[in-house]
Amino acid sequence: MAIVVQKYGGSSVGTIEKIKNVAQTVVRRKQAGDDVIVVVSAMGDTTDDLIGLANEVTSNPDKRELDALLSTGEMMSSALLAMAIKASDYDAISYTAYQIGIKTTGQHGKSLIDDIDGENIKKSLSEGKIVIVAGFQGINEEGHITTLGRGGSDTTAVAIAVKLDGICEIYTDVDGIYSVDPRKYKDAKKLDEIDYEEMLELSSLGAQVMHSRSIELGQKYNIPIYVGLSNSDIKGTVIKGVNNMNMESKPVTGLATSDDDVAITIRDIESDINTVSSLFESVASKRINIDMISQTAPVNNRVNLSFTIPKVDLSECLEIIKPFYLEENQIAIDQDITKFSVVGIGMKTTSGVASKMFKLLSQNDIGVKMITTSEIRITCAIKQKDKVKAINVIASEFNL
Amino acid sequence: MAIVVQKYGGSSVGTIEKIKNVAQTVVRRKQAGDDVIVVVSAMGDTTDDLIGLANEVTSNPDKRELDALLSTGEMMSSALLAMAIKASDYDAISYTAYQIGIKTTGQHGKSLIDDIDGENIKKSLSEGKIVIVAGFQGINEEGHITTLGRGGSDTTAVAIAVKLDGICEIYTDVDGIYSVDPRKYKDAKKLDEIDYEEMLELSSLGAQVMHSRSIELGQKYNIPIYVGLSNSDIKGTVIKGVNNMNMESKPVTGLATSDDDVAITIRDIESDINTVSSLFESVASKRINIDMISQTAPVNNRVNLSFTIPKVDLSECLEIIKPFYLEENQIAIDQDITKFSVVGIGMKTTSGVASKMFKLLSQNDIGVKMITTSEIRITCAIKQKDKVKAINVIASEFNL
Repeated sequence: MAIVVQKYGGSSVGTIEKIKNVAQTVVRRKQAGDDVIVVVSAMGDTTDDLIGLANEVTSNPDKRELDALLSTGEMMSSALLAMAIKASDYDAISYTAYQIGIKTTGQHGKSLIDDIDGENIKKSLSEGKIVIVAGFQGINEEGHITTLGRGGSDTTAVAIAVKLDGICEIYTDVDGIYSVDPRKYKDAKKLDEIDYEEMLELSSLGAQVMHSRSIELGQKYNIPIYVGLSNSDIKGTVIKGVNNMNMESKPVTGLATSDDDVAITIRDIESDINTVSSLFESVASKRINIDMISQTAPVNNRVNLSFTIPKVDLSECLEIIKPFYLEENQIAIDQDITKFSVVGIGMKTTSGVASKMFKLLSQNDIGVKMITTSEIRITCAIKQKDKVKAINVIASEFNL
Repeated sequence: MAIVVQKYGGSSVGTIEKIKNVAQTVVRRKQAGDDVIVVVSAMGDTTDDLIGLANEVTSNPDKRELDALLSTGEMMSSALLAMAIKASDYDAISYTAYQIGIKTTGQHGKSLIDDIDGENIKKSLSEGKIVIVAGFQGINEEGHITTLGRGGSDTTAVAIAVKLDGICEIYTDVDGIYSVDPRKYKDAKKLDEIDYEEMLELSSLGAQVMHSRSIELGQKYNIPIYVGLSNSDIKGTVIKGVNNMNMESKPVTGLATSDDDVAITIRDIESDINTVSSLFESVASKRINIDMISQTAPVNNRVNLSFTIPKVDLSECLEIIKPFYLEENQIAIDQDITKFSVVGIGMKTTSGVASKMFKLLSQNDIGVKMITTSEIRITCAIKQKDKVKAINVIASEFNL
C-alpha cells in the first residue's frame, strides 16, 4: 500500500460530469489498496473568470485581495470532488490550505511553499478517507491567503508527496512531455523519462506543462513525478533524477522556443563592473527576469551591453535603466527575437553540441543574434521568421 | 468616533457596479470619522448557483462539503469589496471566518456563532483600515468550515458589533420592518422601532427580513440593530429593547402569516404524559420544528393530539411517529392551513386582544382550526382561502 498524491488540472475538473469521472478514478485507486490524496485546480476557466471580475473592479487589483479571491476557485472544486466521492459511498474530506497548514513565503501571486503540516492529512488517511486538497493556495506568516502562481497546484501536489513520502502523479490534458512542442514540430517524440534539470530548463523556456517550482521540489527531495493523461493506456513521462534513469546516449533531450522576450541593447556605457551589476540589480529588484546577457569587449573603456527580458516588462524596465545612460540613441530595442534552446543532461559529458548546432544554423542561413549557455542548455536569439526552419533542422539532426 | 458594523446583503453586492457603490458608501462613512467594519453576503444568486452545482453532483450533498463550497461565495464578495475600496485609495482588508476566529458550534448548515476573536479586526482598525468580513461562515471546534444558515450574514454582523461594542446597521433591499408584509397588505405601516421579542416572533412566523439568531444575539447583549436601505433618505427600523422605546399604546405591533406548515392529528392515543412527550422528543431529535400543539380532553383515557410541522418535513415526521399509533386511520393530515399570528409586546399589559381577534374572525366567518399563544403572540390555524380576508380585517382593526 502506497501513499499516492494525484493532481488533476482545471480541464480535468472543468464540469460536474468530469468531476464525477475523477471521483470514480480516484475511488478505483483507493479500492486497489492505496492511500489517495487528490490535489485539484479550479474548474475550467474559473481562475480566469475571477481575474476578470477583479479587473472589472480595478485595472490594478490589490495583490493580497486578488489571492483571497482566486483561492476560492480551488476551494469550490475540492468541495465538489469530495461530495462526488462521498456520493459514491467512499469517505472523503476536502481541505483548504489553512486546514492542513500549507505555509508559504514570498510575494502574493507567486508564493513559495515553505512547509506543510501534514497531520490532518495523515489523520484522515488513517480513518480511511480519500483526502482532497485545494491546490494553488497557501497561508503566509501573517495569516494571509496566498497563491503559488499559474500551475501552482502541481507544486502543492509535489510538496504533499514530499511531506508524506508519497508517489506523485500529475494528470493533465497532454499525454506526457515531448522533446519539442508537438504543435511546433509534428514529428516530436514523447519522452519516457526526463531529468529534473532538463525539465526545469524546458519549463523556464516556455514549455508550459509543469509549474517550475514543482520540479525544483521534486529534484530537491528526489520524488519522481509522473505526468500524463488520467484514465488512459497511453504511457506518460516520469520526471526524475538522471541517476535513476536508463540513460540513452542522446546529448540533447529537448528543444524549446519562445517569442515572449525582447532584447535591449545599451551602447557605450562605462565598462565598470559596478555600473553593470548595479543596473542588473535595479532591474532584478523589480522582479523582472533578465535572461540572455552579452557584452562586447571594451573600447576606450566603453562597452555595448545586451540582455533580454519578458516583453510584458519592457516599459517598466526602460524606466529603471534610464539613470544608466545619457542619450536616447544609446538604447536599441529588438522585438524580433525568438529564443531558441536545446537542453540535455548529456551535454555535460558530450562535447561539440554547440559547434554542431551553430554549424547547422549557419548552413541554413539562420543568423544568431545572441548566445548564452549553461551546463545543460544552449540558447540563441534568432529572428522570428527563422524559427520554424531552425526547429526542423535541429530537431531532425538530434532525433528529437 | 464610533465603531460601525454594516452588513450588505446579496442584492446590494450583486454586480461589480454595485460593489463599487458600496465601496463609496463605506468610504464616506470612514471619512465621516467612524471605524467601519463591513460584513458582506455572497453576490446576488451566487449561493443558489453553488447549491445548484452541488445538486448536480448529488441530490444529497455531504453537509460538511456543502458548507465548504457555500463559504466561497462570501470570500469572493469580501475580496472584491476590499479591492474596490483600495482602488479608491482607502486602506482595506478582507477577512475570512478563520482569519478572525469566528468560532461556531452546532450542525453544518445552521451553526451558531460561539465567539469571535476580534484581535485581527481591532489591529486592522487601529491601522486605519476598513475591515471587510465574509459573512455567513464560521469554523467549528474540529476546524471545519461551517455556515450559519440563510441570512446568516446578519448574525455575523451583530456578533461582531457585540464583540467590539459597535453600532450595527443591516442594509437590505427593503426599507425597514413593516407591521404586515406589504405584499400581503398594501396599507401596511413601516415601524420606526420594534422590540427584539416582537421581531423574533415575526421572524419565526415567516417575516424573512432578518436571520432570527441575529436578533437573539442583539437582544442578549442589548445591541440595537438598524434595518433599512443603504444610500437612502428613507428612514428604516431600529430593533431594540422595549425599555429603550417610545412605547405607543398599541397592543399589536405586527401580523404575519405562513402557508408552509401542515397539521398532523393522531386520534385516540393514550392520555399519558410519557407517551406524548416521548413522541415530541422523537420528532424534535430529528430537528423537525413542532409549532402549534393542541390536545383534546381525555375520553376513556384517550386523547386526540394535533400539531403543526413544516411541510418539507412531513414524510420524515410520519416515519418517526409510526410507533405511537396502531392503525392508519388514527392519523389525519391537514395541508390546508395558514398560520395567522399577531405579535405585540403590548399584549403583556393589554388584555382582551385574543377575544377581540377571535370575535372579529368569527364575525367574518373565518373558522379557527387550532390556537396557540405566548405572552406576546397569538397564532391560529385558519383555512388558506380565508387568509386575505383575515389579514384585512385584523390589520385594519389593530391599525397595522
